[in-house]
Amino acid sequence: MNGAESVLRTLADSGVTVCFANPGTSEMHLVAALDRVPGVRGVLTLFEGVASGAADGYARMAGGPAATLLHLGPGFGNAFANVHNAYKGRTPLVNLVGDHAVAHKPLGAPLASDVESVARPASHWVRTVRDARSAALDTAEAVAAARSGAVATLIVPADAGWEESLGPVAPAPVAPLPAVPSEAVEASARVLRQGGAALLLGGAATSARGLDLAARIAAATGATLLRDTFAARLARGGARPRPLGVPYLTEPAVDALKAFSSLVLVDTQRPVGFFAYPGQPSLLADPSTSVLALAAPGEDALGALEDLASAVGAPAAVSVPALERVALPTGGALNVDNLSAVVGALLPDDAVVVDEAVTASVMFVERLAGAGEHDHLFLTGGSIGWGMPAATGAAVGAPGRPVVNLEADGSAMYTLQSLWTQAREGLDVTTIIIANRSYAILEFEFSRVGAEGDGKAARELMDIGRPELSFAGLASSMGVPGRRVDDVPGMVAALRDAFSEPGPHLIEAVV
Amino acid sequence: MNGAESVLRTLADSGVTVCFANPGTSEMHLVAALDRVPGVRGVLTLFEGVASGAADGYARMAGGPAATLLHLGPGFGNAFANVHNAYKGRTPLVNLVGDHAVAHKPLGAPLASDVESVARPASHWVRTVRDARSAALDTAEAVAAARSGAVATLIVPADAGWEESLGPVAPAPVAPLPAVPSEAVEASARVLRQGGAALLLGGAATSARGLDLAARIAAATGATLLRDTFAARLARGGARPRPLGVPYLTEPAVDALKAFSSLVLVDTQRPVGFFAYPGQPSLLADPSTSVLALAAPGEDALGALEDLASAVGAPAAVSVPALERVALPTGGALNVDNLSAVVGALLPDDAVVVDEAVTASVMFVERLAGAGEHDHLFLTGGSIGWGMPAATGAAVGAPGRPVVNLEADGSAMYTLQSLWTQAREGLDVTTIIIANRSYAILEFEFSRVGAEGDGKAARELMDIGRPELSFAGLASSMGVPGRRVDDVPGMVAALRDAFSEPGPHLIEAVV
Repeated sequence: MNGAESVLRTLADSGVTVCFANPGTSEMHLVAALDRVPGVRGVLTLFEGVASGAADGYARMAGGPAATLLHLGPGFGNAFANVHNAYKGRTPLVNLVGDHAVAHKPLGAPLASDVESVARPASHWVRTVRDARSAALDTAEAVAAARSGAVATLIVPADAGWEESLGPVAPAPVAPLPAVPSEAVEASARVLRQGGAALLLGGAATSARGLDLAARIAAATGATLLRDTFAARLARGGARPRPLGVPYLTEPAVDALKAFSSLVLVDTQRPVGFFAYPGQPSLLADPSTSVLALAAPGEDALGALEDLASAVGAPAAVSVPALERVALPTGGALNVDNLSAVVGALLPDDAVVVDEAVTASVMFVERLAGAGEHDHLFLTGGSIGWGMPAATGAAVGAPGRPVVNLEADGSAMYTLQSLWTQAREGLDVTTIIIANRSYAILEFEFSRVGAEGDGKAARELMDIGRPELSFAGLASSMGVPGRRVDDVPGMVAALRDAFSEPGPHLIEAVV
Repeated sequence: MNGAESVLRTLADSGVTVCFANPGTSEMHLVAALDRVPGVRGVLTLFEGVASGAADGYARMAGGPAATLLHLGPGFGNAFANVHNAYKGRTPLVNLVGDHAVAHKPLGAPLASDVESVARPASHWVRTVRDARSAALDTAEAVAAARSGAVATLIVPADAGWEESLGPVAPAPVAPLPAVPSEAVEASARVLRQGGAALLLGGAATSARGLDLAARIAAATGATLLRDTFAARLARGGARPRPLGVPYLTEPAVDALKAFSSLVLVDTQRPVGFFAYPGQPSLLADPSTSVLALAAPGEDALGALEDLASAVGAPAAVSVPALERVALPTGGALNVDNLSAVVGALLPDDAVVVDEAVTASVMFVERLAGAGEHDHLFLTGGSIGWGMPAATGAAVGAPGRPVVNLEADGSAMYTLQSLWTQAREGLDVTTIIIANRSYAILEFEFSRVGAEGDGKAARELMDIGRPELSFAGLASSMGVPGRRVDDVPGMVAALRDAFSEPGPHLIEAVV
């Protein structure tokens, strides 16, 4: 058995069963091994950024890592932005990066480069396989690292794939998440009992179970529940607790947080502005607010919430009334207001919402609150071009659940090749392009950073309406039925059709 | 004047007049400054990989660097593959990468990452601006570094853009290329006089002037002229000398090179296989062939060729007979053979050919030899997704010259957003998609690397024909007239139309 097969068999034995791939010559032995290892399903993408974003979306829904298969340093470069998003969200992910054969690498071939240097800023764990005999062990350890909430990047020289191996190895033990010290639980209980406190939830704490625990703690202490602006996976809808999102913009975020005498962090870091602005703080909590961590990222947040619930004598259950679903609008030209209401009114139960709506996101989040139970996935690393790949992977990772991708037009153009993989795999993804024909976030941020001028040359770099893009045409050219709508009845009809038919659909919603 | 304006003014004063941009919030002050610095033209792209590839194509034609404007680490990641291609081709290039404000960076905001680590493997020169007062000086030095044939990456924290600067600085002196030592000229002259030698030309040596000097040396010594497989810019057509390309594949390359007792390198490195293959050498020259460098990359190759011409008593001029132009095929279903003949027969004089034809490239190169004088640009770094961006930039850098982009379908899907910029800027680019519905290079390499199995799962990862892509549809959805053809008369008509109308066109040639 060659090294490549030992790697794939080890992946399968370790429970990694999907590989989002965009391979090249240096990965051909791994590709060949797919036929001998049916436990790993190869999913082809047309661009590496689709593969990495799909692996992120997959793992958020499946709860365990997918693999990517990438081609040397430039392949990792193409994947980088969405690996970065996974890294910031602590999504489990195993990147397999082919490299030149060991003796070939130093000779300066066109594709030779320092893969580790490119990979390290977006990987919690990086290793280069020494040879075919150690490849399987390295793979098992990469999977174990990923399962603890990490991006693991394993670089596989071509000859480590084609040479004789020692066969697959058993899964490596996954270290349990470290329990938080009892002092952290006690300190958190103390400040919550004092009143005026908020719990800020991220990571595992925005799961259905985390929200339930947090709501019980809040019921006992009067604490306010907040959540990260861009949670990796937020359980939402129905009768689930509804923590308030920290606002994206610095001023309202500072306003929202200054009400609290203390802020208890649960599986997240202290709130930081998305960007810095002249004369505004980077740290969003008021200096007079005491900030303490119940559970740092990487610690056992759910265990800590259990302990805290006991410590504060929380009730065994709390009941949160469901909100009324937003009414279905009936007419008029489409705008973000009625578009978000249409989606809120029609969202199927158990949907997965992949949200790269950028400037429109806040309104969608609000309008979806009254829908049935669903999961809402946000952009954790700020690097756009994530939504369409993540929706693709989420559909693979959550078969049977409808996926709705809320996608800004500027962001969509980064990784639109995702649509082809959606068509190829027959994935149940409904993509809604919010087509405002501009980088609206930039027009908005332009004045906020104190930039002056705002003349023609600057405007030109934020205007993507010349020439006008046809997203419906782009979709149908890649095998996904696409439709352009500009009024409410058209949107309602298109969305109903998309939800009633299997497979991918794209709706270009002109707002 | 803020730091951003001082940067742009310094760029303009240093002769960098085009900036291919895909900016974000951290670059807003640089965007705003475009209105105050009319000497720099901003060209918007929808993806950073388009910006970097366009800057590569621009500089190869304009002879001096363009700037890119990129958004933090993930923006550089998206640009990485084409920056890598520029790096390997030693294309002058100035990357401006916005980063978080200095005090904001360490706080763990979503987009924070180690930009230098990502940039370094694809940059000859990397620097992070300290503050607004030093930004202009850093810019001038980045441009000077680029002008010596380097990729220069300058990371600009947001506050270095918005704070008060000391104003622009004068251009930094550009170090002249170091002259080669006279010993290298003498040693080269000696081996050429002994006979059985070949000159291997790369870099500046494949320019019209380099080829002319090499042909004069060959006339005096009987040396054979070879060129790099993937030359950055090869002067070609008409009565220009026609060095033989080193074959892409290891076996024929080894065969072609073993005929020579010595190999004299001119602005290139010793020949290395594109990939390693089991049981085959990585170094392509026979161990019995003596390999010596007349001029290493970065040295003054044209000066060295002048000196060598004198040393061997080369004639003042040589005459190379032009080849007959290939005949225009008249009928039949389209295949690579007659497609390349159609292009060879109709190529306009003074065209710029941007070649990412991958498996089909060799045949195109052969069929274009009888066309009028033109430049042929190859993929120097092996990272696909370069052709369409490079064609975009080449058209900006060589106004008035028709650009023909020979583009494989798999590669096209990496950076197809280029078409939108071509439409927006009205660029005279004719893209010919060679649509074979597969990663043909991988099907080909699969068995060559000794991969076994070749079953359904492996085949699936090389097949991009399910679903079938419509490149004509993709083009028209981005504002570029697109047309699908599958026979010779259709191809002839489409190409004639494209060459006779201004602006971009795309022809999907189904082979």
